[in-house]
Amino acid sequence: MGRDACLSNCEPRGILYWFATMQVPKSRIPFCPACGSPTKLAVPDGDEKMRAVCSSCGRVHYENPKMVVGCLVEHDNKVLLCRRKIEPAYGLWTLPAGYLEVGESAAEGASRETLEEACADVEIVSPFAQLDIPLIGQSYIIFRARMKTPSFSPGSESLECELFALDDIPFDSLAFSSIIVTLRMYIEDVKAGNIKFHYCTINKRIGAGPSDLRSFDIDNHLAV
Amino acid sequence: MGRDACLSNCEPRGILYWFATMQVPKSRIPFCPACGSPTKLAVPDGDEKMRAVCSSCGRVHYENPKMVVGCLVEHDNKVLLCRRKIEPAYGLWTLPAGYLEVGESAAEGASRETLEEACADVEIVSPFAQLDIPLIGQSYIIFRARMKTPSFSPGSESLECELFALDDIPFDSLAFSSIIVTLRMYIEDVKAGNIKFHYCTINKRIGAGPSDLRSFDIDNHLAV
Repeated sequence: MGRDACLSNCEPRGILYWFATMQVPKSRIPFCPACGSPTKLAVPDGDEKMRAVCSSCGRVHYENPKMVVGCLVEHDNKVLLCRRKIEPAYGLWTLPAGYLEVGESAAEGASRETLEEACADVEIVSPFAQLDIPLIGQSYIIFRARMKTPSFSPGSESLECELFALDDIPFDSLAFSSIIVTLRMYIEDVKAGNIKFHYCTINKRIGAGPSDLRSFDIDNHLAV
Repeated sequence: MGRDACLSNCEPRGILYWFATMQVPKSRIPFCPACGSPTKLAVPDGDEKMRAVCSSCGRVHYENPKMVVGCLVEHDNKVLLCRRKIEPAYGLWTLPAGYLEVGESAAEGASRETLEEACADVEIVSPFAQLDIPLIGQSYIIFRARMKTPSFSPGSESLECELFALDDIPFDSLAFSSIIVTLRMYIEDVKAGNIKFHYCTINKRIGAGPSDLRSFDIDNHLAV
């Protein structure tokens, strides 16, 4: 998981949440990135939602979800996991994954993260899953991948990297709900002998930590 | 296509492009959204890329691709297209699609855009395609969908909406490369009797307009 990929403490919250807590809503973009003037929250013409609008130049600044891209690296009926050397979820296991950057495709980003976190040079096999987490504005895109040569070692953000047989995956020590869901789906597919592409939504409870394994539900699961 | 979903005139460009044009690179985030101070371009510790770093508070501001979500609405062996009432690509045909918002899933966003642009209330059938366009920092996520009741009409951003048989799709008057590619893949799948999930990258040529139908190549096409 790349830098600052887990923003569960910065959850976007709706007007109902604001009303419930009797707080005045604050812009999550308090200053205009284009001119530096303060923004104010307002509903622009033709829009229906409160946006950060620059008090000087009038530009409207939207908030869009971020894509987290990663690899499910398969080797000898095992999958490659990395134990995190960074917060959040320090010491817990994850798939190599991180934020997609402008200028690269999701497949390129997933390969780059796998090289950075597991020093594994991989080729993408197929798309495996898209997992949206609306509450924290993230969408995970996970690819199946294989190592070009069977070589890996911990990168700077990993304590260790290890290939796990599917029966040995440390579900009690996984870092994020997205990783738990991905690996559960993958194990089911492998046991059924039919690896599909999955789409689903992970609904986290407001205030839940990224490593609270009981803090989410799966919704809208579709498989192709 | 929702507001400002087509940023082909704001293409992110690499250091080679900058060198070739002998321009000093400028931050695309000139002021810090957190404190309003000017940013400077610098490579942060532990990073490898130039980022917008606040000259006052030191925050690093990353640029991440945006997700464009849309629906391929199927009805009686036809698909629903909208003719754009907004720029870019005014007057050309598109699938209902627009930027994903924080707080909604991709499926919810695709349904919302279809309601806004075609006044069609749909349920999602399955994920159909992810098409990354690295040069302009967009990733299209397209779902197959069906109307809950067979009713549609142009929303405020559409001149007209129409169901097209697959042989009648106006390929010479489509708005974007992503829409052309999606519909080509869909027609092939329907003719083969096997509708899959597709992943691919659309490589646009630098400087190409969003409606230049000859300005792109398909790369890394994977289907499940």
